[in-house]
Amino acid sequence: MESSYRKGLERVARQMILIHRADIVIKLVLRTIVRDLKVRHAGIFIYDKKHDAYIVKMSRGNTGFKIPSGFVKIKKDNPIINYFTAKRFSFCGDFILLDNIEKLIRSPKVKKDIKAGEFLDDLQTNLDFYQARACVPGFFRKELVGVLFLGDKNNGDKFNTKDLGFLSTLASDVVMAIKNAWLFEDLSRQIEVNKRLFLQMISAFVSSIEAKDKYTRGHTERVMMYALSIAEQLKKRGELSNRNKFVDDLRVAALLHDIGKIGVPEHILNKPAALSEEERDIVREHPAIGDNILKGVDELEMVRLGVRFHHERCDGLGYPDGLHGEEIPLIASVIGLADAYDAMTSDRPYRKALSFDEAINEIKKNKGKQFDPKVVDAFLDYTQETNNKLR
Amino acid sequence: MESSYRKGLERVARQMILIHRADIVIKLVLRTIVRDLKVRHAGIFIYDKKHDAYIVKMSRGNTGFKIPSGFVKIKKDNPIINYFTAKRFSFCGDFILLDNIEKLIRSPKVKKDIKAGEFLDDLQTNLDFYQARACVPGFFRKELVGVLFLGDKNNGDKFNTKDLGFLSTLASDVVMAIKNAWLFEDLSRQIEVNKRLFLQMISAFVSSIEAKDKYTRGHTERVMMYALSIAEQLKKRGELSNRNKFVDDLRVAALLHDIGKIGVPEHILNKPAALSEEERDIVREHPAIGDNILKGVDELEMVRLGVRFHHERCDGLGYPDGLHGEEIPLIASVIGLADAYDAMTSDRPYRKALSFDEAINEIKKNKGKQFDPKVVDAFLDYTQETNNKLR
Repeated sequence: MESSYRKGLERVARQMILIHRADIVIKLVLRTIVRDLKVRHAGIFIYDKKHDAYIVKMSRGNTGFKIPSGFVKIKKDNPIINYFTAKRFSFCGDFILLDNIEKLIRSPKVKKDIKAGEFLDDLQTNLDFYQARACVPGFFRKELVGVLFLGDKNNGDKFNTKDLGFLSTLASDVVMAIKNAWLFEDLSRQIEVNKRLFLQMISAFVSSIEAKDKYTRGHTERVMMYALSIAEQLKKRGELSNRNKFVDDLRVAALLHDIGKIGVPEHILNKPAALSEEERDIVREHPAIGDNILKGVDELEMVRLGVRFHHERCDGLGYPDGLHGEEIPLIASVIGLADAYDAMTSDRPYRKALSFDEAINEIKKNKGKQFDPKVVDAFLDYTQETNNKLR
Repeated sequence: MESSYRKGLERVARQMILIHRADIVIKLVLRTIVRDLKVRHAGIFIYDKKHDAYIVKMSRGNTGFKIPSGFVKIKKDNPIINYFTAKRFSFCGDFILLDNIEKLIRSPKVKKDIKAGEFLDDLQTNLDFYQARACVPGFFRKELVGVLFLGDKNNGDKFNTKDLGFLSTLASDVVMAIKNAWLFEDLSRQIEVNKRLFLQMISAFVSSIEAKDKYTRGHTERVMMYALSIAEQLKKRGELSNRNKFVDDLRVAALLHDIGKIGVPEHILNKPAALSEEERDIVREHPAIGDNILKGVDELEMVRLGVRFHHERCDGLGYPDGLHGEEIPLIASVIGLADAYDAMTSDRPYRKALSFDEAINEIKKNKGKQFDPKVVDAFLDYTQETNNKLR
């Protein structure tokens, strides 16, 4: 009976190492303690670097008490923490039992020692506040990462040495799991930050290039937005296999689709009239130039396909390679349509923008000619779903 | 006596979770088994995703045998693996003991069952090959991640049920630690990849911008190289506090120092003659333009200082802000000197390049005027150390 709770807790202790979120590790352990050890509540004071203090996390079981909100931090000089870290008094050991503390306070030895008495009174007040009947420390190397505390057992039994030994081992396992989870959280956060930086850096470059071309300001942002919306619809239609990877690549490719324009002379980009045939040929080099710029960057194979082929056409009349139909990678078809739609609906030096309806008609007319039919369908879904709000 | 090895192994099992390199976890566990359990050798067949096979890792102790190189992989249909995964026969259980297998082979029941007999013969051959007296599986969920195997005990004793129970628990802990380490290795690898991609992407952009300016091709690469070499010397002189961060930022800032030139009209950049005062003023906007381009990218505060202030001068006569002496961030002073040295030693439309000696004299002459004295000293150290190989 007495040791029946251990198996469950040992199992939990084994599993928690693969949970890489500290808050979930804590919840899991506390709940299991409350359930298997049959205590009214259990909690942990867990060290928080940012505040240089210990945060209180609790599981209150069915009958246990709840910490009033606002009282969720204890400082490093709190006697519960100090008991394990400073060990100022000879009675400071490897665990705290409220019963022992009460006995100590009444002992003649402590009655003569004012400092000890004050410390123990303060400790008792704190234990009472958290209704903590027993506390065990969780050290990692020499650092007190957390202190596990438990309310009364439901049946009124006292904690015995075996309980405490077991809980101590558990506490160090928990602390290890939390440390492990923290490391994971840090690494994952770093990955997110790096991804964000990468996209921000590309956006910064692209805007600076776009700034040179007075006719296309804001174009890239809009193309990316349309392209991601089309991908959203392709997803709904079940046309995407590796969704997340596709969307990540599409975002980057849409941002970069016109990067090759950096290789087009400024006087051509900014010419306030229709281009000559020769000038148009130069502009038409931009997808291949873009592809070439990116060839030194690893893991952009898919992105480069989007950049290189976004001016290809279903009917093979596009550039730079004159690909046909299914030869054109989906990522390029999506960007191609988004790009064309934005071009149609923007003013150019030599023509006014088309209206929404005119542009939609143009796209429908070119389904299967210029544009991949399934991409057109996805785009139409998108305009419908947003209640034609592009209009 | 018998259980005396367990404490050490349990301690190791607890620690290994925070070792984030799978190979070290394995080495640690195998060595501890050999030492504390006193076996001739111990090993593990560990699943390798890339090869879809199990790789053999061993610790051979003082007297144990060594696997001949080349025999380091076993396939998934190897009977040692199959014993735990397929469980084709009723005798397949939670561990393998060579003694039991030998007994089984001689049993009348197996003698009648050809398939079972073949399987056991094959198993025995494999166990003999690895001199594996006992094997226990390490599962993660339903996946057999590894199989722990042990040679004979040094004192000739047989393995008993308690040994095997303990080893089974140990095997699942080991497998958990390995899984955890693999995840860490994956995340760390991803962080490295992302960092590389970030730098490659910047380089790609910078090269494409540089390609527009026919007088400065290769300039950025050289400035980065000089700047990092100066940082190396500053490090040796103890002038850098947060070394790694400084060097990381310096690398990015050196790559980006001229990014603002994208805002300078091409006809000015490519003018085959000295610039007019007005044109020079436009070129002088590039550090501020560069800073401005990067303002939308998080965590580049230090990099932006390098970009914005790399044309400031100690004597306050630089641009864009006319900072003096210590007001100029170190990162900018380093790039400033690297940039100036490369400009001096490169041909320009309106003048020939200076020789190495002329450039060094120019730099010495401008120490404390144009250049931060401690950066000049570091640069001179660098040219000395490389035996003036820049000459």
